[in-house]
Amino acid sequence: MTLLAGRRTGTVDHGGSLERARALFPGAPEPFVDLSTGINPHSYPLFELPATALSRLPEPGRARDLAAVAATAYGAPSAANVVPAPGTQILLPRIASLVRPGRAFVLGPTYQEHARAAAIAGHEVAEVRDFARLADANLAVVVNPNNPDGRVISRLELLGLGEKMRAKGGLLVVDEAFMDVGPGAESLAGNVDQGGIVVLRSFGKFYGLAGIRLGFAIAHGSIAERLEEELGPWSVAIPALEYGIKALSDGAWQTYMRAMLAQAAHRLDQAFARAGVITTGGTSLFRHVDIADAAGLFRALGREGILVRAFADRPTQLRCGLPGHEVEWRRLEVALGDWAQDRQAMRR
Amino acid sequence: MTLLAGRRTGTVDHGGSLERARALFPGAPEPFVDLSTGINPHSYPLFELPATALSRLPEPGRARDLAAVAATAYGAPSAANVVPAPGTQILLPRIASLVRPGRAFVLGPTYQEHARAAAIAGHEVAEVRDFARLADANLAVVVNPNNPDGRVISRLELLGLGEKMRAKGGLLVVDEAFMDVGPGAESLAGNVDQGGIVVLRSFGKFYGLAGIRLGFAIAHGSIAERLEEELGPWSVAIPALEYGIKALSDGAWQTYMRAMLAQAAHRLDQAFARAGVITTGGTSLFRHVDIADAAGLFRALGREGILVRAFADRPTQLRCGLPGHEVEWRRLEVALGDWAQDRQAMRR
Repeated sequence: MTLLAGRRTGTVDHGGSLERARALFPGAPEPFVDLSTGINPHSYPLFELPATALSRLPEPGRARDLAAVAATAYGAPSAANVVPAPGTQILLPRIASLVRPGRAFVLGPTYQEHARAAAIAGHEVAEVRDFARLADANLAVVVNPNNPDGRVISRLELLGLGEKMRAKGGLLVVDEAFMDVGPGAESLAGNVDQGGIVVLRSFGKFYGLAGIRLGFAIAHGSIAERLEEELGPWSVAIPALEYGIKALSDGAWQTYMRAMLAQAAHRLDQAFARAGVITTGGTSLFRHVDIADAAGLFRALGREGILVRAFADRPTQLRCGLPGHEVEWRRLEVALGDWAQDRQAMRR
Repeated sequence: MTLLAGRRTGTVDHGGSLERARALFPGAPEPFVDLSTGINPHSYPLFELPATALSRLPEPGRARDLAAVAATAYGAPSAANVVPAPGTQILLPRIASLVRPGRAFVLGPTYQEHARAAAIAGHEVAEVRDFARLADANLAVVVNPNNPDGRVISRLELLGLGEKMRAKGGLLVVDEAFMDVGPGAESLAGNVDQGGIVVLRSFGKFYGLAGIRLGFAIAHGSIAERLEEELGPWSVAIPALEYGIKALSDGAWQTYMRAMLAQAAHRLDQAFARAGVITTGGTSLFRHVDIADAAGLFRALGREGILVRAFADRPTQLRCGLPGHEVEWRRLEVALGDWAQDRQAMRR
């Protein structure tokens, strides 16, 4: 168990910043191939928004439409359980504040914003490695499937933990940011009515639309109502409302995309394997690598203008997102090949 | 002094919903002329966003650029005092929570979300009519210029109140949502470094882009940092970042628009005057009406497909925004004329 910083945890480094990439690798060929996030490079098809999409206030009824569509897409009991928000990120401190300040345990290593949000809400935060330890917390956080290693906790185990949390007035937060490409049967979205559970779903990752800011909390009606009140009216911008409603109802695209992403993830595994690196988990939106020379690989790719995600506290790990265009695939495959050759040469 | 509801205040009715207009006036000619908000009908000119505007995560550096541009536009001491957010609405409960639960006084009547947000934050909320009473609160809220009547409190008076609040660990919130068309010299944006003050600036109203969701808190660096932490990274969507940066740096458009809106407000006053109604204040983005038969006027306009803002608790008052196109002006002028004629006929 690692005890994290107290009330404030400062800024956390994340993937997805090309500014940072340019600062790290100033001589690299542009454009950068950004594989530092788990965002789908094959965005949901763009479409024309109504002429007044930017000028008018969002209609409250449109947010209700979005909640209804999201409830169906995610398997929530009803629209009243679904809270649309401008990204899940902004919800984290609000959700952590639903529980009186106490102990917050985050099943780690994982996405670092959960620990930061729990600290902001006044909790004493620790990262635990053992799922069973979570039951001792007032606020328990599980990312499922996990980012970056893809580890999945079963729905049955989570339901048991959720029941324990409910019984003592605690809360289980299950961040299903990557569940669109995970084992859907393990989602807790359908079980939030038992109380003590908040499920988070991210829109921008699977639909490749991270710039519009859209995410959802799914919870018991009383929790959902409280979160709605905190967000107030008009929290979701019109572009996010319109893309959300269209994309979340588009089952055909979702099915096609899941298959396409699974293929792409397989191709990524093979590219690494040819360079002598066996990927160890992840999801169809990113793959996880754990090798001694992760830092060397990170730099070798960076110098070729390919940005993957490194972790300051876990120097042997990398996370690699999916290339989009064929030219990006080629650049990655060549760079991996060159790195593998250089490594062999050095060993001789 | 009116004591408002305790911890929860439920949903508040606002202008800007065409669904609601259609429900109220099912037979009215479409399209509705929506004058129920104070949003500029002459939106900042639309422009092409970069191709990746929806797909990528917002760049943290772009949010910093926006804060810098906003600091200059609003006269804040520095970018470090400016917190960009997806609308000011979402900030209200966060700002109210900066003060330990106590007494929150809102100078009223005014925009009702301030009372709701303070109640969410656990304050006992009251609406006061006398500016001097605000000094007795832990959280004091002034909308300046006020919505809907346009009343302006001088910067000097507000600075005095802010100093009192700071001295006792309280907070003065000055909502300058309409200050873009108000007396700029009365803005407190340049004085936030004295502490105890949060200034709110709304982007969507003056720039006519309410659908993108953008607003700002301007405060002492320590408060700004705290609010930034709560919002987390990526809280502002890319369309809002890009429109914000461009429009807030466009001094020529701002100057032109202020003059144009002042002319339009004058035309609106004249249209009411010809119907025998003397407007009593407001700003260049909306005018305020206080007449015995406000309900009759609201219905007469509604039946003609023209929606103005009525107030459940103040039956003699209306707020009327600016028509945009000439055809909207004509519809309003004709409807006002017809209403005035009918009224005269009934009096005979």
